[in-house]
Amino acid sequence: MTASPALKATVSTPSDREIRMERVFNAPRERVWKAITTPDLVTQWWGRGNKLVIEKMDVQRGGHWRFVEHSPQGVHGFEGRYREVTPPERIVQTFEWDGMPGHVIIETMTLEDLGDGRTRLVTLSLFHTTEERDGMLHSGMEGGAQESYAALDRVLADLAKR
Amino acid sequence: MTASPALKATVSTPSDREIRMERVFNAPRERVWKAITTPDLVTQWWGRGNKLVIEKMDVQRGGHWRFVEHSPQGVHGFEGRYREVTPPERIVQTFEWDGMPGHVIIETMTLEDLGDGRTRLVTLSLFHTTEERDGMLHSGMEGGAQESYAALDRVLADLAKR
Repeated sequence: MTASPALKATVSTPSDREIRMERVFNAPRERVWKAITTPDLVTQWWGRGNKLVIEKMDVQRGGHWRFVEHSPQGVHGFEGRYREVTPPERIVQTFEWDGMPGHVIIETMTLEDLGDGRTRLVTLSLFHTTEERDGMLHSGMEGGAQESYAALDRVLADLAKR
Repeated sequence: MTASPALKATVSTPSDREIRMERVFNAPRERVWKAITTPDLVTQWWGRGNKLVIEKMDVQRGGHWRFVEHSPQGVHGFEGRYREVTPPERIVQTFEWDGMPGHVIIETMTLEDLGDGRTRLVTLSLFHTTEERDGMLHSGMEGGAQESYAALDRVLADLAKR
């Protein structure tokens, strides 16, 4: 299947401390949920082709996660904690990058069943300050997310074949 | 020495997502810094008389901390990460309670040398939302802080004798 314009993520800023990303996937909600909550699957898409080491991924309220991405530009750690895990609909988690320790983003991921075998993933990121939000917007996050989502498309297509 | 009114913490709300606490200690700044950054001393005051187990306390940028308080009402874990550590002036750290995982507060602690052998400790807490800020205000945090600071007074007095 060729990627259609509908499969491009849409980025917006609903308030001065938020970023909203929306992306439709050609897969039912349970499959998308599996791909974003199963460590062996996350390693296949989250790092956009880079090696990803999952040091912790305890997907439950209060559990911690920590991913280390090994890219040609260096090693980058990311970590956070799950605030809410409601399969297959919603995950609320904190997110921080080792390069800016203690700058914490609240990510709310909502999986919407579109009723036609597709799923809309909406990620709302809330920052403590507008400066932190703007820093993320200018970090190349949109391009990185598009690459991750394209890799997630491939994981979802593989899962469909099993 | 009898506690004077000046030794009571003052609590204010500089914005709708912040709480500011201010407290003067009868000790020079280096001594206050030592009492708040040395695990064996923190166990003597942070828990207000309750047993405190320090599981992690890596006081440097990017380091993590985790304290577990054993009170008659139960066991409560608290944790976070250091964003900035500038001895003996400033610590910026995240703070969350296990009971509300993923609700993260940014605490900026500033130690001001008052020039007369006393130190003013100002703690500014920034929340992601006003609701979280108000929840903290109504949790009895002010009484708890007054008790912690009174215990810290005793630790500082003990250190002066060494």
